[in-house]
Amino acid sequence: MYRVGIVGATGYTGSELIRLLSGHPQAEITALVSRSEAGKSIRTLLPHLNGLSLPTLSAFDPDALARACEVVFLAGETGFAMDHAPALLQRGLKVIDLSADFRLKDPQQFTEWYGKAHTAREWLDESLYGLPELTPPDAYKNARLIANPGCYPTAAGLALAPILHMGVAAPDGIIIDAKSGVSGAGRSRVSVEYLFTELDENFKAYGVEKHRHTPEIEQTLQAFSPAPVRVRFTPHLAPMTRGILCTAYVRLREPLPAQTLYAQYTEFYRGQPFVVVRPLGEYPATREVYGSNRCDIGLTVDTRTKTAVIISAIDNLVKGAAGQAIQNMNLLLELPQTTGLPLAGVSP
Amino acid sequence: MYRVGIVGATGYTGSELIRLLSGHPQAEITALVSRSEAGKSIRTLLPHLNGLSLPTLSAFDPDALARACEVVFLAGETGFAMDHAPALLQRGLKVIDLSADFRLKDPQQFTEWYGKAHTAREWLDESLYGLPELTPPDAYKNARLIANPGCYPTAAGLALAPILHMGVAAPDGIIIDAKSGVSGAGRSRVSVEYLFTELDENFKAYGVEKHRHTPEIEQTLQAFSPAPVRVRFTPHLAPMTRGILCTAYVRLREPLPAQTLYAQYTEFYRGQPFVVVRPLGEYPATREVYGSNRCDIGLTVDTRTKTAVIISAIDNLVKGAAGQAIQNMNLLLELPQTTGLPLAGVSP
Amino acid sequence: MYRVGIVGATGYTGSELIRLLSGHPQAEITALVSRSEAGKSIRTLLPHLNGLSLPTLSAFDPDALARACEVVFLAGETGFAMDHAPALLQRGLKVIDLSADFRLKDPQQFTEWYGKAHTAREWLDESLYGLPELTPPDAYKNARLIANPGCYPTAAGLALAPILHMGVAAPDGIIIDAKSGVSGAGRSRVSVEYLFTELDENFKAYGVEKHRHTPEIEQTLQAFSPAPVRVRFTPHLAPMTRGILCTAYVRLREPLPAQTLYAQYTEFYRGQPFVVVRPLGEYPATREVYGSNRCDIGLTVDTRTKTAVIISAIDNLVKGAAGQAIQNMNLLLELPQTTGLPLAGVSP
Amino acid sequence: MYRVGIVGATGYTGSELIRLLSGHPQAEITALVSRSEAGKSIRTLLPHLNGLSLPTLSAFDPDALARACEVVFLAGETGFAMDHAPALLQRGLKVIDLSADFRLKDPQQFTEWYGKAHTAREWLDESLYGLPELTPPDAYKNARLIANPGCYPTAAGLALAPILHMGVAAPDGIIIDAKSGVSGAGRSRVSVEYLFTELDENFKAYGVEKHRHTPEIEQTLQAFSPAPVRVRFTPHLAPMTRGILCTAYVRLREPLPAQTLYAQYTEFYRGQPFVVVRPLGEYPATREVYGSNRCDIGLTVDTRTKTAVIISAIDNLVKGAAGQAIQNMNLLLELPQTTGLPLAGVSP
Repeated sequence: MYRVGIVGATGYTGSELIRLLSGHPQAEITALVSRSEAGKSIRTLLPHLNGLSLPTLSAFDPDALARACEVVFLAGETGFAMDHAPALLQRGLKVIDLSADFRLKDPQQFTEWYGKAHTAREWLDESLYGLPELTPPDAYKNARLIANPGCYPTAAGLALAPILHMGVAAPDGIIIDAKSGVSGAGRSRVSVEYLFTELDENFKAYGVEKHRHTPEIEQTLQAFSPAPVRVRFTPHLAPMTRGILCTAYVRLREPLPAQTLYAQYTEFYRGQPFVVVRPLGEYPATREVYGSNRCDIGLTVDTRTKTAVIISAIDNLVKGAAGQAIQNMNLLLELPQTTGLPLAGVSP
Repeated sequence: MYRVGIVGATGYTGSELIRLLSGHPQAEITALVSRSEAGKSIRTLLPHLNGLSLPTLSAFDPDALARACEVVFLAGETGFAMDHAPALLQRGLKVIDLSADFRLKDPQQFTEWYGKAHTAREWLDESLYGLPELTPPDAYKNARLIANPGCYPTAAGLALAPILHMGVAAPDGIIIDAKSGVSGAGRSRVSVEYLFTELDENFKAYGVEKHRHTPEIEQTLQAFSPAPVRVRFTPHLAPMTRGILCTAYVRLREPLPAQTLYAQYTEFYRGQPFVVVRPLGEYPATREVYGSNRCDIGLTVDTRTKTAVIISAIDNLVKGAAGQAIQNMNLLLELPQTTGLPLAGVSP
Repeated sequence: MYRVGIVGATGYTGSELIRLLSGHPQAEITALVSRSEAGKSIRTLLPHLNGLSLPTLSAFDPDALARACEVVFLAGETGFAMDHAPALLQRGLKVIDLSADFRLKDPQQFTEWYGKAHTAREWLDESLYGLPELTPPDAYKNARLIANPGCYPTAAGLALAPILHMGVAAPDGIIIDAKSGVSGAGRSRVSVEYLFTELDENFKAYGVEKHRHTPEIEQTLQAFSPAPVRVRFTPHLAPMTRGILCTAYVRLREPLPAQTLYAQYTEFYRGQPFVVVRPLGEYPATREVYGSNRCDIGLTVDTRTKTAVIISAIDNLVKGAAGQAIQNMNLLLELPQTTGLPLAGVSP
Repeated sequence: MYRVGIVGATGYTGSELIRLLSGHPQAEITALVSRSEAGKSIRTLLPHLNGLSLPTLSAFDPDALARACEVVFLAGETGFAMDHAPALLQRGLKVIDLSADFRLKDPQQFTEWYGKAHTAREWLDESLYGLPELTPPDAYKNARLIANPGCYPTAAGLALAPILHMGVAAPDGIIIDAKSGVSGAGRSRVSVEYLFTELDENFKAYGVEKHRHTPEIEQTLQAFSPAPVRVRFTPHLAPMTRGILCTAYVRLREPLPAQTLYAQYTEFYRGQPFVVVRPLGEYPATREVYGSNRCDIGLTVDTRTKTAVIISAIDNLVKGAAGQAIQNMNLLLELPQTTGLPLAGVSP
């Protein structure tokens, strides 16, 4: 059994890590850290975890974590990991960071989009951006610090990497219209606009002019395109808790049969247990991957407008956060990727 | 008081006409027609109409309608109006058809997208496509038969006409990513996929390869563009009952300041009571127009990708159907456009 | 046209008053007061009111209100009205208070349940508890201050008054199991537990041990029972925005045919435009009264357990708050009760 | 590995069995039966099961099942099990029936509430009603046919058995006000009233006059009360997919401290992994047990009305159906009860 700790245990990503790890046959949760709730039982705060045997919440203490764990998940706010991951890494721990701190390789870009200087540049180079289906398997060897991708970049990256790899796309004409459940906003975003009454029976765009996931999406896709990638990314909020549906539009240099595109996707994801390329004519719905670590993809080519349409669906808290983090842990520990991770969705 | 009749009174569009007309100061409902439920009280079938004084449901009878009404709304399935509107028109009635029968001017296109021959071609020429903010006011003079637009074409047409009119768009690169509440499917679409359990907490695309509103959108926009208009239209289903959010992407021939675009929209819709162009930086949400006949529009220009993003929101049952039909009636009867129509949304 | 003002205009009850009054043919909104947002346009804060012509938000100023209005609605938090209504009343204004300040006739009871002393006892006696279907019509003559009932007491009072009036109930065995949409919590209740993510797909009880509407319900029902009335009241939160369904259970001294009970209810509410007693075998759903000022009631007698079951449905923001307040205004101004108030529900 | 089969695999209960069993370490699904869809892949019909390796759907064939399985779950409509379980039992299979066929011990009662004669009376005596926390553990020894309880009887039985066992209740005054998500209606209930548009933002009672779970609840509770038990049971439909909240009211012969009641419940359920008695002052919400096999219970005593209020929450598809069926299988196979069953809820 590997001993794992979770820092930021009371947020939505943290508690989803707890839920999923509680069913992992080779991991045992030995430390739960919460800066604001240290000393409390997490079951009192999060009664959906009733029935699990869990350590009491403790304050953040690198030495204690080094004694208790081999792997630590950081599920805190942006800025925490770059300040505190080094202390854990120096103590020999493997760290999987679910925040944005180590995702952008260029520290200047980090500053531009997150509004602060990066405080752990030396670790930025060593860190591995772990989107398992797009990251070379070799890269996990000897990795110590993994940057777990954002939810939108996961959905958009998996939807678009194969077509960019084909070289048929006009890489400056990519439009990503994404729709997310509200849990992506996290549990600490307590303001009028996130009240039930404001979001129920409502649908809207947000971050239309600028969203922090844009450079991360472009960085991910750039690896698959010789020409510079520029995406127009518009996130929306749907009146549901979980799920991202990403509808991506790619202008084609020349028309392409849908069948050819489909063949590329099935080939590209061959052997990947968590990506399901749906048969032509079938498109994924978010409910089908609810609670699952899968990403389902459907696609077509609109010959009238020379546009490829690729639609991907994930659960933002699982494949878009906690599940993918555990998938990264499995790879780090050389366990089978699927260990402890649900393939089936919870439906209805 | 004008006496009005509604054919297809028990569907979602029909019952919304009843609800809205019951508050119209110059219209009185004198006939309710339902082929399947004739003889019944509509309050028994649709208890939300409890408290209103309404005529008993009757069978479709052109002579009876001619005696009882001056205006008739047809809210039946596709195909009914082209078969039966002529009998009403020949008896001197004004007819507002909410189905698709008279929307496409080209009968061949109708056949191509709706799979049947048009049976009232002679009335197709005379009919007026009534999207009040885009249809010339003069056209209502002497009009007898109005084709009430589809919900998506209303949202997309209002979002895109002003920018096409500017001549700055690449008219073949328009992407319309629309999200709709479920009521657009109507009350007679009774199948597993429309069950509550299948759509709750779910988000998905549908009609990805072909949707009947595509040619209607293109016909509407073509009037504003010298170059041929081709749109990539993807409708989605959101877990809510009412509302359409239409996110439209237009590739610009050359970059354009957002302020210029905003000025064009405010000018284009000056004096239109039902279109609100939101200040730059503000985007509409469907809840804000829930139950209202408004269409709110927000916009920006993404200079990184030379893309204009225009977002419109309507209530698909009001501005997208019954409300717009009443707006058309008001214009037909030379009443103020806003008579009896709600401007404020029901929120929360 | 009567000139009316709304204090607390940006809350859910305040903005619902605006929406409803904007369609009232004999009332004109001449003042909107918000202590926190004075000087702003309400359309900027509440875009669903886009399209309406409304006064700018102003600070609370009794003299200004006296100049601008004849009637003032107080839609603020508990405690505001008892402190500030007297200043308005002394200036000759009619006041309709939507808070709890003047609902309980006994100031000691107020202190017990609301945790503070009553600061306007002299007005408590004069104030009229205005639940129009249960309050004697004469009482509105010369009334100056109306206490608008709470949402649960409205639903429970209308459900239970007729059966208590019959004298067949064991008045100490009344159970009121009520289910409410979330908007009852108001717009200022900004905490984790009211986030969308916490309430979506969730159902729970709250206030199980003590809820402030209990004494108000008992006070209302006591008027219809010679024996002391004691109710067990359990409110619940349903994952929806609007609507209260109140399921009331009354132990019967002796069995009673459902038909007899039904006859009593139809007789009791004869001539009341806003109460619909549904035929035996039919029960109301909240959606049927969504956005309407109606209260629909269904009932039966369970002879196996000698229990009468009475189910009432209202929209908590309309008949349970703003709509009933306007109904009270109509009665105060000797207008027909239904003036400007919707009878039909918004459905689907 | 035990080999298990599921008959009625495409319904909501059947597919939930598949999802849960796919994570069970000692069970392997070796047969999936669907009368209407034999020959198809279940992944095509239910894409949320994508990623699982599952047998193709086959027709119902007792011999084939006897070869392929040791345990068979029957998840079909009422009436199927009494007609077909005997054939399976005679072939030596263990059968767990999720329908109502073997729940009521009295065949006359079955006829009265289900409207047909019981066709397998000889097995009715042998069958075991398996509500594990209320059924004596010994009873599982040698059991061959298990009647898996209904969802409401599970929630109500667990809420009320301990207080009845105390002998403090007036057993004829029990009121059970239950609220359920829509999935309880199943996937085959395809009619207008179960459309998304009809249930979204809606709350209503149903089966008010008669619901088939009433006698099952009474039968379950009768085992814990010397005096005859009569319950008033009112089910409601909440706008959510999963979850039952059961609010039970018990008139007390004499007042009782809440602490005493709490002590009884914790004692009664000591050692039961799936029942969590919440601390006094805390009440369960359905979301907290979403996807979990737990039943959480909160309680209080209202001394004003001498009423005990007990609130239980379950996931109707897990503890109320498929999860409890697997719990029964575990007991039948002498595995630890919790094997393969989730304790944590999926939240948010």
